[in-house]
Amino acid sequence: MTPVPAEAAKNTKSVTVSRGAFKVPGFLAGAVESGMRYSGRLDLALIFAQDPAGCAASGVFTRNSFCAAPVELCRERLEKRRAKAILANAGIANACTGREGKIRAVEMARIASDALGCPADSVLVSSTGVIGMQVDIGPVARCMPGLVQSLRPDGWQDAARAIMTTDTVEKMASARIELDAGLSVTIAGIAKGAGMIAPDMATLLVFACTDAAVSPEVLDYWTRAGADSSFNCITVDGDTSTNDSLIVLASGAAGNTPITDTGGSESRAFGRALASVLRDLALQLVMDGEGATVLVEIEVSGAADRESARQVAFTVANSPLVKTAFFGQDANWGRIVAAAGRSGVKLIPERVGLFFEDLCVFENGAPVLGEEVEQKASQIFKQKEIHVRLDLGLGDGAFTAWTCDFSLDYVKINASYRS
Amino acid sequence: MTPVPAEAAKNTKSVTVSRGAFKVPGFLAGAVESGMRYSGRLDLALIFAQDPAGCAASGVFTRNSFCAAPVELCRERLEKRRAKAILANAGIANACTGREGKIRAVEMARIASDALGCPADSVLVSSTGVIGMQVDIGPVARCMPGLVQSLRPDGWQDAARAIMTTDTVEKMASARIELDAGLSVTIAGIAKGAGMIAPDMATLLVFACTDAAVSPEVLDYWTRAGADSSFNCITVDGDTSTNDSLIVLASGAAGNTPITDTGGSESRAFGRALASVLRDLALQLVMDGEGATVLVEIEVSGAADRESARQVAFTVANSPLVKTAFFGQDANWGRIVAAAGRSGVKLIPERVGLFFEDLCVFENGAPVLGEEVEQKASQIFKQKEIHVRLDLGLGDGAFTAWTCDFSLDYVKINASYRS
Repeated sequence: MTPVPAEAAKNTKSVTVSRGAFKVPGFLAGAVESGMRYSGRLDLALIFAQDPAGCAASGVFTRNSFCAAPVELCRERLEKRRAKAILANAGIANACTGREGKIRAVEMARIASDALGCPADSVLVSSTGVIGMQVDIGPVARCMPGLVQSLRPDGWQDAARAIMTTDTVEKMASARIELDAGLSVTIAGIAKGAGMIAPDMATLLVFACTDAAVSPEVLDYWTRAGADSSFNCITVDGDTSTNDSLIVLASGAAGNTPITDTGGSESRAFGRALASVLRDLALQLVMDGEGATVLVEIEVSGAADRESARQVAFTVANSPLVKTAFFGQDANWGRIVAAAGRSGVKLIPERVGLFFEDLCVFENGAPVLGEEVEQKASQIFKQKEIHVRLDLGLGDGAFTAWTCDFSLDYVKINASYRS
Repeated sequence: MTPVPAEAAKNTKSVTVSRGAFKVPGFLAGAVESGMRYSGRLDLALIFAQDPAGCAASGVFTRNSFCAAPVELCRERLEKRRAKAILANAGIANACTGREGKIRAVEMARIASDALGCPADSVLVSSTGVIGMQVDIGPVARCMPGLVQSLRPDGWQDAARAIMTTDTVEKMASARIELDAGLSVTIAGIAKGAGMIAPDMATLLVFACTDAAVSPEVLDYWTRAGADSSFNCITVDGDTSTNDSLIVLASGAAGNTPITDTGGSESRAFGRALASVLRDLALQLVMDGEGATVLVEIEVSGAADRESARQVAFTVANSPLVKTAFFGQDANWGRIVAAAGRSGVKLIPERVGLFFEDLCVFENGAPVLGEEVEQKASQIFKQKEIHVRLDLGLGDGAFTAWTCDFSLDYVKINASYRS
């Protein structure tokens, strides 16, 4: 099954996503202060599937060659597409840690499985924090009884806080949809990530849970499609972490007729809702991007195909000159056009149109000049959320990327982080 | 003839490059204050080949789809590989200016050719400055007599100053080599560019001249090879301008036996010297990069091939996280390793070695730990020039890229530039 992300991305507005507290039948969550690297804050989180047989599980992970030990472990364990629990720590990434790192990731899972009374290989592990340091097993063992005791249906906010690193706020999102003529199911998730992606605080972790009954294959299909229309559409600095992980679990506690195909209306409704929750979490990450002061939506339309639209969108979204212009509230259309022009996608300047919100600032190969246009553009660049549309005039391919600005604080945060 | 850049890059150390004043037999240079956009400074430069028949000429230009009008004009006029003069202005880029922009570029050349008494299509035009503004023809016409009068054999420093935009210093480089058993020839150039590439001050202009007699085909060969081992190896912010131009002229005034093949020792000596001059100009650009405080050489070795080495080198050289770490003097090896890991080139972590100067900080998939290593690395990161070597352990492919750091001043310069 090849994901059809465009399908999942469409009509997402019909799903209402909430950022408040939630519960997901069939799951418990909790967190404790282990003191492994931070002190005086939650830093160890646990998510637990109550069904003794575990739940359907799917994961999407970093493509970085230097993937972290827990990522390798999750990849192996998710081959059977079932899991009982996720254990996550913040502060130490367990990346670039060699054989010893892998041994310690396995050990973390074993400690949790002993306490939870489930098979060792049914526990997934995620880590985020400094690269090159080994995780400390002592605090994990010492805190495990307390962590298991902390598990409760509404423990998600604590878990979301426990996985934060340079994040300034916890990220939560949930949605409810109706399946089977009136049966309501929940799809909810927590995430962390502030530099997308700051390898040093290595980085993007997302855990989503649903009580819907979904076959592992279908869950996998919608997880990949959802990632493609959410986390694969955002950038803060173009860097990709060694630890990026998105894990989705489905308990089936809602009791709906299990969804076992990808084409039916129930299945598509589920896919859209999951995509909506993941997209909301993704936007929360960009808004909390390191030093970010503005959220920018870069919509590329009229491309020859989706891939070339994506390439143009990300070249613009990652351009330091474009991003500093947004920070400076400078409606500098020339930088956007020039970034698109160097994207590697062949463009015909005369066909390109550039819009800030609905304001056309460039067409027919030349700027739309005038005092009024300048003033309107200037006003738009004072907004906290800005929509930029670049129409290439070549075909039907489209892609939307989200980015933030490049501020003085981004440099300050990242120049001084380790020291 | 396909350029063999590696060949040109080798043994460049045997050529001594000077950054002081120079003359090139057969050429005159000059500059005036036209006041087209700046006031109280030189902003219009002219380079003139004295031979009534003109000189051999070659050019390498931006690949940006939105290339400027003067770039289009140069591409057309250089098809015959001969030229009489180059007219360049700073302040207005004549990019994204539609049909009118092209008409004005042609008009600039015509005004110069009338004053110089040469065919209109033998004059090349270069512009740098703000995108989307039309060049002003009035000041060009008004100043042309004075500009022609300013031409002299040692007018290069004035010309180098006249093409500056956000540059803080003019860039000049020259070398002398011996051909034909003792006959000395000069190869020299001037350049501008401070954000490589800041589209708004669109941007990289390089004019190199030599008195060597070289056939247009061979000149073209060495120009392309030289660009590949110099300007194509540097980055300040990964952005590519609409106006990037490298033009090389050869007068033949030295009277050497004309170089008409690329394989002979005289030809290779010429190619090496040209590459050395271009590389020196390229490094001057990086050192004067917007807000730059340090020059970083990223050498990737042991890659499967040169292209994959290049990809890894530029991913590291353009990573905002790597560049802010250099600004913060933070020997943050994790960010370099993580950037290499996301470059798209498949790496085997256990084979990768990372060195700061001669200090190994990462090998066998894990960091080389210890107080002493940390202290030494910390000292190295206080240098004004830092050499980083990443050995991939996969093959013989190698590539070296030069970059600078990402400083608070970079953000300040680019956030406030247009306003």
